[in-house]
Amino acid sequence: MLKHENLKISHLGDRKFPSPQPERYGRFVRENERVLVSPDTESGARADAEPPCFERAGPRAKLFFDPSAIACGIVTCGGLCPGLNDVIRSLVMTLSYSYGVGRIFGFRFGFAGLSADPPADPMRLTPDGVKRIHEQGGTILGSSRGPQEIGEVVATLVKHDIGVLFCIGGDGTLRGASALAAEIATRGLRIAVIGIPKTIDNDLLWVQRSFGFSTAVEKARTAIQAAHVEAEGAWNGIGLVKLMGRHSGFIAAESCLANNDANFCLVPEVPFTLEGRGGFLELLEQRLRTKHHAVIVVAEGAGQDLLECAETERDASGNVKLLDIGRYLHDRILDHLKDRGMATSVKYIDPSYMIRSLPAIALDSEFCLILGQHAVHAGMSGHTDMVVGFWNQRFTHVPIRAVAGQRNRIDPGGALWARVLEALGQPVSMMGS
Amino acid sequence: MLKHENLKISHLGDRKFPSPQPERYGRFVRENERVLVSPDTESGARADAEPPCFERAGPRAKLFFDPSAIACGIVTCGGLCPGLNDVIRSLVMTLSYSYGVGRIFGFRFGFAGLSADPPADPMRLTPDGVKRIHEQGGTILGSSRGPQEIGEVVATLVKHDIGVLFCIGGDGTLRGASALAAEIATRGLRIAVIGIPKTIDNDLLWVQRSFGFSTAVEKARTAIQAAHVEAEGAWNGIGLVKLMGRHSGFIAAESCLANNDANFCLVPEVPFTLEGRGGFLELLEQRLRTKHHAVIVVAEGAGQDLLECAETERDASGNVKLLDIGRYLHDRILDHLKDRGMATSVKYIDPSYMIRSLPAIALDSEFCLILGQHAVHAGMSGHTDMVVGFWNQRFTHVPIRAVAGQRNRIDPGGALWARVLEALGQPVSMMGS
Amino acid sequence: MLKHENLKISHLGDRKFPSPQPERYGRFVRENERVLVSPDTESGARADAEPPCFERAGPRAKLFFDPSAIACGIVTCGGLCPGLNDVIRSLVMTLSYSYGVGRIFGFRFGFAGLSADPPADPMRLTPDGVKRIHEQGGTILGSSRGPQEIGEVVATLVKHDIGVLFCIGGDGTLRGASALAAEIATRGLRIAVIGIPKTIDNDLLWVQRSFGFSTAVEKARTAIQAAHVEAEGAWNGIGLVKLMGRHSGFIAAESCLANNDANFCLVPEVPFTLEGRGGFLELLEQRLRTKHHAVIVVAEGAGQDLLECAETERDASGNVKLLDIGRYLHDRILDHLKDRGMATSVKYIDPSYMIRSLPAIALDSEFCLILGQHAVHAGMSGHTDMVVGFWNQRFTHVPIRAVAGQRNRIDPGGALWARVLEALGQPVSMMGS
Amino acid sequence: MLKHENLKISHLGDRKFPSPQPERYGRFVRENERVLVSPDTESGARADAEPPCFERAGPRAKLFFDPSAIACGIVTCGGLCPGLNDVIRSLVMTLSYSYGVGRIFGFRFGFAGLSADPPADPMRLTPDGVKRIHEQGGTILGSSRGPQEIGEVVATLVKHDIGVLFCIGGDGTLRGASALAAEIATRGLRIAVIGIPKTIDNDLLWVQRSFGFSTAVEKARTAIQAAHVEAEGAWNGIGLVKLMGRHSGFIAAESCLANNDANFCLVPEVPFTLEGRGGFLELLEQRLRTKHHAVIVVAEGAGQDLLECAETERDASGNVKLLDIGRYLHDRILDHLKDRGMATSVKYIDPSYMIRSLPAIALDSEFCLILGQHAVHAGMSGHTDMVVGFWNQRFTHVPIRAVAGQRNRIDPGGALWARVLEALGQPVSMMGS
Repeated sequence: MLKHENLKISHLGDRKFPSPQPERYGRFVRENERVLVSPDTESGARADAEPPCFERAGPRAKLFFDPSAIACGIVTCGGLCPGLNDVIRSLVMTLSYSYGVGRIFGFRFGFAGLSADPPADPMRLTPDGVKRIHEQGGTILGSSRGPQEIGEVVATLVKHDIGVLFCIGGDGTLRGASALAAEIATRGLRIAVIGIPKTIDNDLLWVQRSFGFSTAVEKARTAIQAAHVEAEGAWNGIGLVKLMGRHSGFIAAESCLANNDANFCLVPEVPFTLEGRGGFLELLEQRLRTKHHAVIVVAEGAGQDLLECAETERDASGNVKLLDIGRYLHDRILDHLKDRGMATSVKYIDPSYMIRSLPAIALDSEFCLILGQHAVHAGMSGHTDMVVGFWNQRFTHVPIRAVAGQRNRIDPGGALWARVLEALGQPVSMMGS
Repeated sequence: MLKHENLKISHLGDRKFPSPQPERYGRFVRENERVLVSPDTESGARADAEPPCFERAGPRAKLFFDPSAIACGIVTCGGLCPGLNDVIRSLVMTLSYSYGVGRIFGFRFGFAGLSADPPADPMRLTPDGVKRIHEQGGTILGSSRGPQEIGEVVATLVKHDIGVLFCIGGDGTLRGASALAAEIATRGLRIAVIGIPKTIDNDLLWVQRSFGFSTAVEKARTAIQAAHVEAEGAWNGIGLVKLMGRHSGFIAAESCLANNDANFCLVPEVPFTLEGRGGFLELLEQRLRTKHHAVIVVAEGAGQDLLECAETERDASGNVKLLDIGRYLHDRILDHLKDRGMATSVKYIDPSYMIRSLPAIALDSEFCLILGQHAVHAGMSGHTDMVVGFWNQRFTHVPIRAVAGQRNRIDPGGALWARVLEALGQPVSMMGS
Repeated sequence: MLKHENLKISHLGDRKFPSPQPERYGRFVRENERVLVSPDTESGARADAEPPCFERAGPRAKLFFDPSAIACGIVTCGGLCPGLNDVIRSLVMTLSYSYGVGRIFGFRFGFAGLSADPPADPMRLTPDGVKRIHEQGGTILGSSRGPQEIGEVVATLVKHDIGVLFCIGGDGTLRGASALAAEIATRGLRIAVIGIPKTIDNDLLWVQRSFGFSTAVEKARTAIQAAHVEAEGAWNGIGLVKLMGRHSGFIAAESCLANNDANFCLVPEVPFTLEGRGGFLELLEQRLRTKHHAVIVVAEGAGQDLLECAETERDASGNVKLLDIGRYLHDRILDHLKDRGMATSVKYIDPSYMIRSLPAIALDSEFCLILGQHAVHAGMSGHTDMVVGFWNQRFTHVPIRAVAGQRNRIDPGGALWARVLEALGQPVSMMGS
Repeated sequence: MLKHENLKISHLGDRKFPSPQPERYGRFVRENERVLVSPDTESGARADAEPPCFERAGPRAKLFFDPSAIACGIVTCGGLCPGLNDVIRSLVMTLSYSYGVGRIFGFRFGFAGLSADPPADPMRLTPDGVKRIHEQGGTILGSSRGPQEIGEVVATLVKHDIGVLFCIGGDGTLRGASALAAEIATRGLRIAVIGIPKTIDNDLLWVQRSFGFSTAVEKARTAIQAAHVEAEGAWNGIGLVKLMGRHSGFIAAESCLANNDANFCLVPEVPFTLEGRGGFLELLEQRLRTKHHAVIVVAEGAGQDLLECAETERDASGNVKLLDIGRYLHDRILDHLKDRGMATSVKYIDPSYMIRSLPAIALDSEFCLILGQHAVHAGMSGHTDMVVGFWNQRFTHVPIRAVAGQRNRIDPGGALWARVLEALGQPVSMMGS
């Protein structure tokens, strides 16, 4: 359970500079404002004396940095996600117009752009240059995976006179950002590291909603519709859709709820077997015998236990990299139904790259705008080693250590999964015996 | 300020029937579970002894109604809103599959369908009949505005053996529903009245998010983009978009944030003048002189004080019904710029009916599904005179009296409006002197 | 009837320069290649000795202009239309990459940008600058209506060393372009004037299809769907959609065929009355009495005879400019049904500006690309006073005099209108008696 | 070259019945009306005495069948294609409302539904039942591939009293339909067989445009955009899109023209090598070295010669069915760049099933409506063994023997391919040496 003391945010030091344009903000957020982690209570219960709570995000009256004296840096890491350009745009606009920061650098292709030998020079970012980038998917900075040598990264930051580095990325990126903040602290440098959590899978802890997720569900729904049309178009037709979700099946689950064309939803959190009485293949066969078509949605991380066996078996042929749960299911279903003498046609749809690369829907665009604003407020006032979160209708500051290395996952005994079972008519268990 | 005791939910009486299919639900919600109204606290502060909180929504272990013994009714009232069919569909699916209610009536064309002389007979609703209705906008039941004689409505409910009536509608509808619940209580009848709050404007109190709003913002954004393209296409070109928002400017404000093409956002909550130094027309003129195009977004309820004068003046010509803030602004802008000798071209866009009638985006579809499920859970367990709300990441029960007759409005001194001013570069005040 | 001799294209003179990059083109078009105007014949009929035919468009082996020695100009005129940026982009790409023209000017805001006192200086156009403009609607050059003093225009062309001027516009623009070509010929200048026909209404003669039209029909269909949803949502509900089409009802007719939600389609080519037995209002009333909802699609130029009376009547109130056939129908329908004591609700939708400003659909984008290529081929080889047409699956050269001042209109006795009547079940005549 | 005599249409015999509702149609088409195959001529050339021409489609004054005396059948075969439901809908509407045919059967799952042992009974089709099916992709009848025993098919037609059978399908289906017409003729039966050509690839001869193709290009464009975003998002990033096109690369070529994000377009008609100087892999490597990202569009039938070798090589591993040109390219590119020591990231997108299953865009919807009308006109007047075509802006009758077994293909020396090379900057040859 989250403890009160674990949610404390690190600061670089005293704040001496007044915030510019105070009349713009309705009010400044005070340092002691908090948002309760848990909104739950019981009628007549006594409140906890010191409940865990997040620091509230927002503009501060006093700044740690003199905006006119520093440069700021932005880096995007990991896989594409709708809204990356929205966040970059918001950071640049807020730094420029609200704080008057004159030098903003976009480091190219992830942390590689912060190494001693970057693939490309940093890009100078201006309001005019980023004005319309949110209309396009992807990231104008490019991205890459993996960390870089931390000494090189610090040297690059120092070389460019960076005061605040904004890291837009997922779990790995945030851990890298935290290590960077630690190294900066060790060296006694005055550089803030602010994370903006990016996870299309919505699998970050203490972040109620991550940008790009709504866009992903929107588009995933159309892939399921396509699978449904294909399934109905053939006798015993099957539509099989693989969706993103390496550790958490939120995209699969929520797009099934938004659509209702799916009959089976397979997610990493809920194990299943293919074989046996009550296993997936038998249940699928039953469905075909009565309805003569079926739609299956599978998160990429589902059934990894099944796949590992398969991988080992096929290792010798050198084709392991082509194997994935979607193609594996595709083959196993065909084999099973052929064994049963049932004609079928399985249409396999993998829309992942068509989803990741989309521009954000309006809701995500707006959310990215606000995330960017709060990241700048946090950085300019000297917070560090934290991400901007959203919780209980409030934007918050969350220490990276509280989110990194953990996962927000579907609770198989909780309300979301119950809704999926209810909406799809899927059996509670698909463990064959 | 909301008081603890005002959030108590009415019940019809003791619950005797076990909930069917307990294995489906991860767990049942206990009667004393609550969700705090305010998640805000201060570091080191003492918690309030008895803070206001909402009853938590969800399936109950015991039911008031025997599902096999009652019929249920559904009615949709007021203007169209994306997601109406999703809610109807969810109600029918949940009543049928989760509870086994066999008779479900859809009353046609709002409360008119519950009158003694309905425009059309109630429609029998079945899972098969509603399977795909969520793919279409509008409501399969039809809608209408205004209340009906309450005695007739009660008689219709009794005649059809209705145990739970689900009213999907806005403020007026909910007040009607509350009056109906009161009359039912007076007569000692066993009929629950459950409201599902419908407001495309997102202006209901204690409901963090209303269905259809996200869809509306999504589409409103494209109207603003069109206005922007038109504005840039002409010398001193102006694009003027009127959006929904009779009392609250959330659609206008949030679609401006999602899009960033607008230069002026006019909402009901923030007064402005047309004339005078620092008034809207002068500021618009300044913008044109420097940038040579402008985009204006106006909520339909903005500037009503200006309009009332105008209406009176023109009353004699019999054209009052054509007047609206959009067309009024259109004319006043043209007059003003003509006076200044500035060539211009004002393109007026009113997308309201193209927005209201859309099918819901995925996020709204999913939200409607869950609202419908919770409404059924609430009704079957005998709650009444309440709406299903969403607050602090939880679904809640809210007494109608706590939401009716009040408004959720933009706080001109709050964070949302500050973001709009910041994103648009709009002056804090447009009151001319 | 079109005569053979009327389709002859004007040339500036002898061609001396070899076409660059001959290997790119499968083959060059020879000067004597023609496309028959009429593909119709009868079995056993003797062919006409000298049938009317168009010159075929395409790259020529010899050029009139030395591409390295001239500048070229582009101007967009009249109302917005999807695909304008696609055409600009294609012109710039083809001029630059296929011919090596180094100086390309975009004149701003229509012919006004070619006057002695332009609203803005011409924009230098480069491949890099136009690379992604086709993803946005409108025209990056801006537009305006109306001609300019012809001497000033010629002087501007000479001043900028223009060899070929590309005029993208409708009937009025093309007539202006033709007058300009005549003045250039009179002065013995070496400037080609090439028109690219722009008419969202698809009403230009001898142009089988105009760019933007397909996009307009695509979007108009969604407006009709919205009207249908609104109509069904109310008892005796009426959805009324006004679409573009000042002289020709193609958008209205074809979007009705693409959609089938409409019950009445009113176009400029087919007169109707409101009053009288068999008039529109009576037929609408009948429809409501049996089906209780109706969808009406009206082209903006329909029923102008009815409107002129109305305008005269209301002239004194100063509101004439607000009157249009859509609002006029709206009011007359309400009055009529009120007279009959029928409750109704009329939802009026005018999506015009939301349609005109869209980016082009794929089909239109591709068509614009090819139009631009052929316009460049035509200009560089010294053709002038012509437009690029599309006819019988071939791109063609058409003299402006053959298209200007005339209209492609729906034939009320032809196949298209028969299809509309058939698909909508609309009476052949709505002339009341 | 097409000969005049090869375009003669077969008839079942004399026409005795007057066409119903003659006032609906502007005019009836006369039997001797023809549409020239070639609209090309040369200035001053003498016209051919007996040029090849198509019979013109349209309603006839006299019918072969008494509409009240026969049933009609519809069958959809082969892969899904946008617009199938539009065609079914149009056939049913026209048969019912324009001709008064009372019995219409939809045979299920392709020709299998006409066999002696169909997977499902024929579906009775009515105007009410098909009213909104065009809003959904796929075919309500289902489909399958392959022929059935011809005697069984004839027996099924006779059993259901079918007068006209409408076969919606591609090359194989049309050959089956022609064989069926021959068998019917042999037996002297009075059954017309009318084909509606379905080919999402647009590869049928003498059919200028096939339904669904425009929808496919529209959606394929978005897949290429996604690939572009992914490519730019990584250092040396590559986006690889496989599109439909087994024998003809029209979808690949035209979606590249509509979009302009692609750098390489590989189609079945233009051979290329992977290896060697000037081969594809070297050219791709060069592109990466200068631009650091690349987008490749490949039609599924491209490079089959390369693949056949590959298949043979890998045959032993049992994975041949997973191999396709897309995945093969994917692997070969990775290997090549790894050899060169270049970091890269290849994102492979196969949107085929998401395209095939879409509802038709407006243009295709309208086209399907008209195809259906003309198919009914053709069948009721006793034409048989023919398809409805579109050519030179006219709808036509084309004998199946003139289209079957041949292909409309991109001419590598023609205008379309020249445009692709020009727009993409792709080398004329990618044959490595």
